[in-house]
Amino acid sequence: MRAFNEALKDAAQATERMLDLLLPRAEGPEARLMEAMRYAALNGGKRLRPLLVIASSELFSVSPVGAHRVAAAIEMVHCYSLVHDDLPCMDDDDLRRGLPTVHRKYDEATAVLAGDGLLTLAFEVVGARETHGDPEVRAELVVALGQAAGARGMVGGQAIDLAAEHQQLDIGQITRLQQLKTGALIAFSCEAGAILGKAAATPRHALRAYAHDLGLAFQIVDDILDAEGTVESVGKAVGKDAAAGKATFVSLLGLEKAKLQARMLADQAAKHLDIFDGKADVLRQLAHYVVTRRS
Amino acid sequence: MRAFNEALKDAAQATERMLDLLLPRAEGPEARLMEAMRYAALNGGKRLRPLLVIASSELFSVSPVGAHRVAAAIEMVHCYSLVHDDLPCMDDDDLRRGLPTVHRKYDEATAVLAGDGLLTLAFEVVGARETHGDPEVRAELVVALGQAAGARGMVGGQAIDLAAEHQQLDIGQITRLQQLKTGALIAFSCEAGAILGKAAATPRHALRAYAHDLGLAFQIVDDILDAEGTVESVGKAVGKDAAAGKATFVSLLGLEKAKLQARMLADQAAKHLDIFDGKADVLRQLAHYVVTRRS
Repeated sequence: MRAFNEALKDAAQATERMLDLLLPRAEGPEARLMEAMRYAALNGGKRLRPLLVIASSELFSVSPVGAHRVAAAIEMVHCYSLVHDDLPCMDDDDLRRGLPTVHRKYDEATAVLAGDGLLTLAFEVVGARETHGDPEVRAELVVALGQAAGARGMVGGQAIDLAAEHQQLDIGQITRLQQLKTGALIAFSCEAGAILGKAAATPRHALRAYAHDLGLAFQIVDDILDAEGTVESVGKAVGKDAAAGKATFVSLLGLEKAKLQARMLADQAAKHLDIFDGKADVLRQLAHYVVTRRS
Repeated sequence: MRAFNEALKDAAQATERMLDLLLPRAEGPEARLMEAMRYAALNGGKRLRPLLVIASSELFSVSPVGAHRVAAAIEMVHCYSLVHDDLPCMDDDDLRRGLPTVHRKYDEATAVLAGDGLLTLAFEVVGARETHGDPEVRAELVVALGQAAGARGMVGGQAIDLAAEHQQLDIGQITRLQQLKTGALIAFSCEAGAILGKAAATPRHALRAYAHDLGLAFQIVDDILDAEGTVESVGKAVGKDAAAGKATFVSLLGLEKAKLQARMLADQAAKHLDIFDGKADVLRQLAHYVVTRRS
């Protein structure tokens, strides 16, 4: 796993350098907004989605700058979703990665706007000439990001999550919820490399299948960590779903079966990468990492 | 003004038809989100920005479908900004166009997500093939929309507006605030026609100058209506800025000078259109309409 840990660290560093470059500097009466956007995005996250973009881009010899820009944009979308999700009217969380959430550190209005600003900047970055020489590629990335992040993707998943407070979901509905809420953006992260590299249909489908299984494994592990972890180890409030009576993979499958399911999905995800031979080793190890992580 | 009223009505109808087509249908456990997005966007607004897109597109013989899609996308962005701006943590407004605001009609969490969904969909629509055959045009529209709507545009203006609650702004700062908060999206609405029509630099600059003056006139009139209007005539809470001790064009210039300034800006805006001859009559009349409107 040494090579994988290096790859994860390199991807995180490249993404943070790009985020630092792309995020507006704090200045003038709107400085508080810019600061909050930086606080939300430059927060020491694991940068799993950026690694997916970068590792999938390497399969198709994409230029690093293009991959890093898309990685930064996806991380902006991910971070905006956390900021809005943490708001008092949503999950009402005080901690994120062991630090105060944006509305706690700043205020609610600034948190709403910082999220809006990050989401908007993500599209601007993806659409800009520097991302890829072919405008067809940029436009395709914009549309795919919109689909993954919007009402039929991530935002739709959040809405189902809200609805789940008032109605019990079964395993099929929980799976769909998670496929939208976290799966769609993870899938786009893998697909982005294929779009940037103008990949053929076969490798593109293989990556999509990998991303599908990986995303589900990821979410099952999130539920396991929420059930088993402590605030200190996970860096955010835990046990909230159980306390709210919300159905999760753990409550529906039981802890042992959930763990087994996550491992099986990770193995299955790695299998989809067979056509790439050794070139996809980082993505294979990422599948393993996702189900063995502690936070 | 007969022809102008027809043009405004036609643009509103075309935009609403397009919004109805593009907005997701309410279905499944996320139905509440979809409903809230439709409620926010299909709300009988005046559709001034769509008219700007459509009228500026007509100067360059742009296909109506492309113009209507961009008009709908800009209206989504405008409506999302109203939904978030109305939230309790922001302006805390109960009424919008005489109807309950989204968080009043639904709930705060749904209002946050509905805004997020509208913003995301706007980029997806602009980037999609149906908007224009040339991907370079679509990518340019995405970037320009991002700049107009983001932290260096509309969202930045909102942030300055928040800061204005704690510090008195002078006329220069108020002008900058309004240029970001409302001016940037109005300017993009005009520029969109030029981008869609691959216009040359000279007509593009003329439209930009028109939009600049129009946007400022528009905001001065908004301040006049806030000072002079009633809830019934304007359709939303009035007198809030004065009550909050916030500086406005009216508080800084006085009512009479503000009215004079708005009229002068509208005349100046129309003058920038001289190079288009009779083809720009709708835009000219729009400048007049903006400073004589009652709501």
